[in-house]
Amino acid sequence: MIWLTGLSSAGKGTIGKELLRHLQTSGHQAELLDGEKLRQGLCKGLSFSEADRNENVRRIGFVAELLAKHGIIAIVAVISPYRAARDEIRHLIEPFIEVYVNASIEVCEARDVKSLYRQARLGELRGFTGIDDPYEPPLAPEVECRTDSESIEECVQKILNKLGLYFRNDHG
Amino acid sequence: MIWLTGLSSAGKGTIGKELLRHLQTSGHQAELLDGEKLRQGLCKGLSFSEADRNENVRRIGFVAELLAKHGIIAIVAVISPYRAARDEIRHLIEPFIEVYVNASIEVCEARDVKSLYRQARLGELRGFTGIDDPYEPPLAPEVECRTDSESIEECVQKILNKLGLYFRNDHG
Repeated sequence: MIWLTGLSSAGKGTIGKELLRHLQTSGHQAELLDGEKLRQGLCKGLSFSEADRNENVRRIGFVAELLAKHGIIAIVAVISPYRAARDEIRHLIEPFIEVYVNASIEVCEARDVKSLYRQARLGELRGFTGIDDPYEPPLAPEVECRTDSESIEECVQKILNKLGLYFRNDHG
Repeated sequence: MIWLTGLSSAGKGTIGKELLRHLQTSGHQAELLDGEKLRQGLCKGLSFSEADRNENVRRIGFVAELLAKHGIIAIVAVISPYRAARDEIRHLIEPFIEVYVNASIEVCEARDVKSLYRQARLGELRGFTGIDDPYEPPLAPEVECRTDSESIEECVQKILNKLGLYFRNDHG
């Protein structure tokens, strides 16, 4: 499974969609689990507290494991700010490719795709990652994408290259 | 997807496991989602209130839909006592085979596989379906299994026969 972590507006969703397209085009079964889809179906009612964010990650891990068991590559694109919660999933699913979708908070805030940073700055949103809630970057991610300096296509290629190693191993 | 509903100890889990075995043996991809597995991974912390039970059903529906999308038959085995919640899933996933795993409360209580009826009678468990919490039987289930008079093998065959109709339709 591929786990995209990073700040809001860092580009997780965009990379996830492109990655899904590439994998499907090359004949793989894959599924994108992004924050929005999950908040509706799986994680309705969860708050932004540390406990609830981690519960969110745990449920996603359960679903991803189920998909992986049936040969479906799960692409997860959620902020998932806590290192320990991500590491829990790492120990659950093999191979686990953690992708740090990294752009500076300034760049993310300038993009502000969903106007969430604006709301957080105005105090309309509390517990917003990067503003008044922590983000713990991965210490040794399998891939790091610098979306403030690399193109989406470059980022996707880096992930596909890493994934390729596993596919080759699969077939001896 | 196949949805097994019924009282505790009615035989949902046993039928689910046998059904899974049959489907896998005949080359189908299938997954059993039973109460126990789900309480751990997906529905931890949910109570037995009507709202939480229905939220439980909704999450299972989300996962089952995801599996179905990738051609994996989801077999769900949970009490799911509320008709409206089951009908919500029915409208989400096609084909939806509702299986009423039916045994009288007396028979279920005599079996009491997990000693839960005993605990409920002692007042140690509150909101137990069939004792002090309602069970709304399906009005028009696709299959009804009478586990107090039919063997497990007969029950599984009835479900496979119903499922066969869809497989045949699939292949013209």
